[in-house]
Amino acid sequence: MVENLKDEIIKAYENISPYVKNIPLYHSASFSENYGAGIYFKLESLQRTGSFKVRGALNAILKNKDKCSKGVITASAGNHAQGVAFSAKLIGVPAVIVMPVHTPLVKINNTKAYGAEIVLHGETYDDAATMAEILADERGLYLIHPFNNIDVIAGQGTIAIEILKDIEKIDNIIIPVGGGGLASGVAAYIKETNNSAKIIGVQSEAVNGMTASIRKRRIVRATGASFIAEGISVKTPGDITFEICSKYLDDIITVSENMIAASILEYMERAKLVVEGAGAAPLAAIMSRSVDYKDKNNVLLVSGGNIDINMISRIISKGMSTSGRFLELTLNLKDSPGSLAAITKFLADEGANILDIRHDRFGAGLPIGFSRVNLELETKSREHIEQIVIALKKAGYDVTVC
Amino acid sequence: MVENLKDEIIKAYENISPYVKNIPLYHSASFSENYGAGIYFKLESLQRTGSFKVRGALNAILKNKDKCSKGVITASAGNHAQGVAFSAKLIGVPAVIVMPVHTPLVKINNTKAYGAEIVLHGETYDDAATMAEILADERGLYLIHPFNNIDVIAGQGTIAIEILKDIEKIDNIIIPVGGGGLASGVAAYIKETNNSAKIIGVQSEAVNGMTASIRKRRIVRATGASFIAEGISVKTPGDITFEICSKYLDDIITVSENMIAASILEYMERAKLVVEGAGAAPLAAIMSRSVDYKDKNNVLLVSGGNIDINMISRIISKGMSTSGRFLELTLNLKDSPGSLAAITKFLADEGANILDIRHDRFGAGLPIGFSRVNLELETKSREHIEQIVIALKKAGYDVTVC
Repeated sequence: MVENLKDEIIKAYENISPYVKNIPLYHSASFSENYGAGIYFKLESLQRTGSFKVRGALNAILKNKDKCSKGVITASAGNHAQGVAFSAKLIGVPAVIVMPVHTPLVKINNTKAYGAEIVLHGETYDDAATMAEILADERGLYLIHPFNNIDVIAGQGTIAIEILKDIEKIDNIIIPVGGGGLASGVAAYIKETNNSAKIIGVQSEAVNGMTASIRKRRIVRATGASFIAEGISVKTPGDITFEICSKYLDDIITVSENMIAASILEYMERAKLVVEGAGAAPLAAIMSRSVDYKDKNNVLLVSGGNIDINMISRIISKGMSTSGRFLELTLNLKDSPGSLAAITKFLADEGANILDIRHDRFGAGLPIGFSRVNLELETKSREHIEQIVIALKKAGYDVTVC
Repeated sequence: MVENLKDEIIKAYENISPYVKNIPLYHSASFSENYGAGIYFKLESLQRTGSFKVRGALNAILKNKDKCSKGVITASAGNHAQGVAFSAKLIGVPAVIVMPVHTPLVKINNTKAYGAEIVLHGETYDDAATMAEILADERGLYLIHPFNNIDVIAGQGTIAIEILKDIEKIDNIIIPVGGGGLASGVAAYIKETNNSAKIIGVQSEAVNGMTASIRKRRIVRATGASFIAEGISVKTPGDITFEICSKYLDDIITVSENMIAASILEYMERAKLVVEGAGAAPLAAIMSRSVDYKDKNNVLLVSGGNIDINMISRIISKGMSTSGRFLELTLNLKDSPGSLAAITKFLADEGANILDIRHDRFGAGLPIGFSRVNLELETKSREHIEQIVIALKKAGYDVTVC
């Protein structure tokens, strides 16, 4: 039974606060006005290494320094890898990070840049994790689990101390949940100080291990993976985090991948912030009205900002599509002079802005005398999209929405 | 002759500080380590309306309230439009904004959202500006010039007061320059308080009116326009801003459009911040080593974050291309089984990641028996790109880099 985490978190705060940034709670006037609520961001996206993970990793090393003399090890291809590598370098102990063999080069390089030794092993995270355990034994390294470790959880919980220093009355603290380390630490501190804030966990519906486990009251393994929110794409919660989250979360909900994409876009456009999928999940909970947020003070835990730059392009398209500002469609046009001019004028009259156009005369299945046009359009809303498609059909165009 | 702006700026600060955000100077550990210098951001991208422009507009209204009884007017399709509309709403006076007829819908809507009346007139900014003058006369509205107005300049100068409260020793303050309002205000305060910081203005080489004017010691009209940094795409400085910038800037330099694109990308990836082109220009000056920044304390004025979301996608491509992480090329391939498999394997062996591939059998000018393949590749560096192109040519491929 895990108890009195509060004292562990206070000790962790004393240990790590000289090294981590305390980014003051950011009140967004624009979001608050738009959503009719107090909206505050805890911007761990601006934390060292671009995510909160450095807190737990650093606390685990500082608390177990005697076990770290030969170095530390973990398995991770994401933020925890950078958190461990950064912390180890800071304290001056060697770090070994085991990553699956297909880990993107940029993630390998980001972790190498902190001086860690990278071991590429296995097809999946589980394979890499097994190898980390073997290497820890063989080489006498201290293994830092990404979430199922009480010192890691206490480190993440230090965020709650900072939040409570910045704001007195909070109604909701909305936290992304993968393995549950962040939610466990923050929830434990809030509840054990008898603060009345509700703690709401958010998962992607694509992989909802903690949600399913809490509902079934036993640890279950989820299937699937989150494409957009890698940081919370964890199939199975740990036994420690399961126990703490079961005890302290007021609610846990899931949001769609599309809504997470739309939230990333909302952060970029309205807040001028780059937020990774996991970090955007709490906003997705508000945008999908899955949380009772109106006229309340909501703290959104923006857990990280490490999003692949190529992913951003894809998410712009996806997010704009979800919010009705993007439409891709294909038309068969009579291959005669003026037919392309006619359709472009038609779309302009409907108020759609053409972003990209491709014209194909030789596509498979295309009747002789016809060409196929693929159009990417900037639109105003979902209603606008419906109106355009109806108008095109009325005008006799053979339209397929992609 | 403009003198004693300092007192005007202190008065402006008293007027506007209850309404604008003072975003504390942000020390970037990551940029500082990477560039070997103290790098600080003044993040006006997080300001109300997403840019510094609200400061000058608000001060102009508050200082001239007696002239504003019937309302205020300006011509702008950008940040100044939003600054004036927001400020007018705050103070409770009507606002009219004249925009060129082809202004993108999103900019019209953003300004309308602050309750302003929008008048669409003319093909160019100059046409809109002329109409604003006419309407100001006709309707008795107070005209707020975007930069050539001493109260606007004093409002922008309040940024300098905030910077000096946060940091004592500054070597360089690097400021984007379009019409010169921001640079005039900040430079005047710094120099008139005898602070030793150097003030360096940055323009896009695509449109460098102030740079050319300062060099020729008279106001000249530049040609061209900045595609990426609309916020500083101003052809002619004002007489007031020309005088102040001539007197107070220590240096003014230009940066390329490509380097601005690379800087926007650097802000997104390394700082997790969305910055518009004008706001990224000071970083472009550092990245292109046009400023003596090493081992010095540099304050970069990040003037705004209002960048079109579709533009971000284009800039990701452009920025990645500039930094050697993107390569688009076209090959003619023998139209036989296995030739596509061979080229994809070849590129994988060279360490290039295929982002997009298009295959065309019927393109104009294509010899019979050949197909054309257009490839978008993720690459590691400029050297990597060279190496790939050389290897392809050696292997007998007919390569064109797009």
